[in-house]
Amino acid sequence: MEKLVLHEDPVSGNCYKIRLVAAHCGLPLERRFYDILKGETRTPEFLAQVNANGRIPVLQIGDRFLPESGAACFYLADGSPLIPADRFERADMLRWMFFEQYNHEPNVATLRFWLAFIGEGRLSEAQRAALPAKRKAGEAALDLMDEHLGAHNFFVAGRFTLADVVLYAYTHVADAGGFDLSHWPAVQAWCARVAALPDHVAMDS
Amino acid sequence: MEKLVLHEDPVSGNCYKIRLVAAHCGLPLERRFYDILKGETRTPEFLAQVNANGRIPVLQIGDRFLPESGAACFYLADGSPLIPADRFERADMLRWMFFEQYNHEPNVATLRFWLAFIGEGRLSEAQRAALPAKRKAGEAALDLMDEHLGAHNFFVAGRFTLADVVLYAYTHVADAGGFDLSHWPAVQAWCARVAALPDHVAMDS
Repeated sequence: MEKLVLHEDPVSGNCYKIRLVAAHCGLPLERRFYDILKGETRTPEFLAQVNANGRIPVLQIGDRFLPESGAACFYLADGSPLIPADRFERADMLRWMFFEQYNHEPNVATLRFWLAFIGEGRLSEAQRAALPAKRKAGEAALDLMDEHLGAHNFFVAGRFTLADVVLYAYTHVADAGGFDLSHWPAVQAWCARVAALPDHVAMDS
Repeated sequence: MEKLVLHEDPVSGNCYKIRLVAAHCGLPLERRFYDILKGETRTPEFLAQVNANGRIPVLQIGDRFLPESGAACFYLADGSPLIPADRFERADMLRWMFFEQYNHEPNVATLRFWLAFIGEGRLSEAQRAALPAKRKAGEAALDLMDEHLGAHNFFVAGRFTLADVVLYAYTHVADAGGFDLSHWPAVQAWCARVAALPDHVAMDS
């Protein structure tokens, strides 16, 4: 495989997803660091060379650039057991990956970013107005996960796949956004199962 | 293939994506209709039998249920030319599909739903507070698409793929959310190219 470079901020769960997949697939990643809070992903150089969308993570494969954490995870894991070979199971894995980006990340991850990194006192008026809806939607996402994990050890196919990778990233640090995981015991048990897998790496590694 | 049933609301662009893929792949879909505005996807029966997340579309394959439009599109198109066989191109297609769900749909589709279906006068205070940010984010998504389409006929691999399907669905009706597409001429030209393809079906078909 061509040389892999991850353009990332180590505090970002979206970046961590890609490092977790690389660890499980035994793929070496070179890491380049940017500080989101200092606007380092909005410089003219970054927008021109890495991602016109001004966001990280971006996975660089040789001289090609791949934004979006879910796409980068899929690229790295393609052909590995992290993506089911069965047609329905593969689509069902993507179902949870889209759920994560639409229902989970904008609520669970955003509240962590706002409360633990920006700080509640420095939120804009619009952000403050959005807090109750994001709290409620984040709880609903965790409810749905808890219901599913009450009957399944992993999200899809009875084993660890990309669906678990992407949902684990922001769930296991959800307390930083004010979500007390003891309210979702099946989610808590699943987090422990994921962290106990061989080849697991921690977010701050 | 097992019998395919689409649980949908015909005014939803997310549902239309699946019908568009089925048309391009020549797959017959039985359709079951629900009215989102009347809460027909939040009934106990729907939550228990179709989708615990209370959302449509859901693609039913035999007796299995697959929520999330992107996952359903991937299931139907798996093995067809709508999904590139090349590893990078396949991941790059998913990149635009995740972009659509994260950066495009919550802004471009939500403004259409709020302004054309709920009505500006009946929005909640929190929705009204979110309008300017959603307008700006929707314009940024269209800017990024316009820049890319200025240099490419389609999003990925030089031809029509699922990336085009999912981005077309809410873009071609963005005017209903107050986005005047004449500001994005490359997007407008691409919409015309998509609509002119053999096997295309219109949203209200």
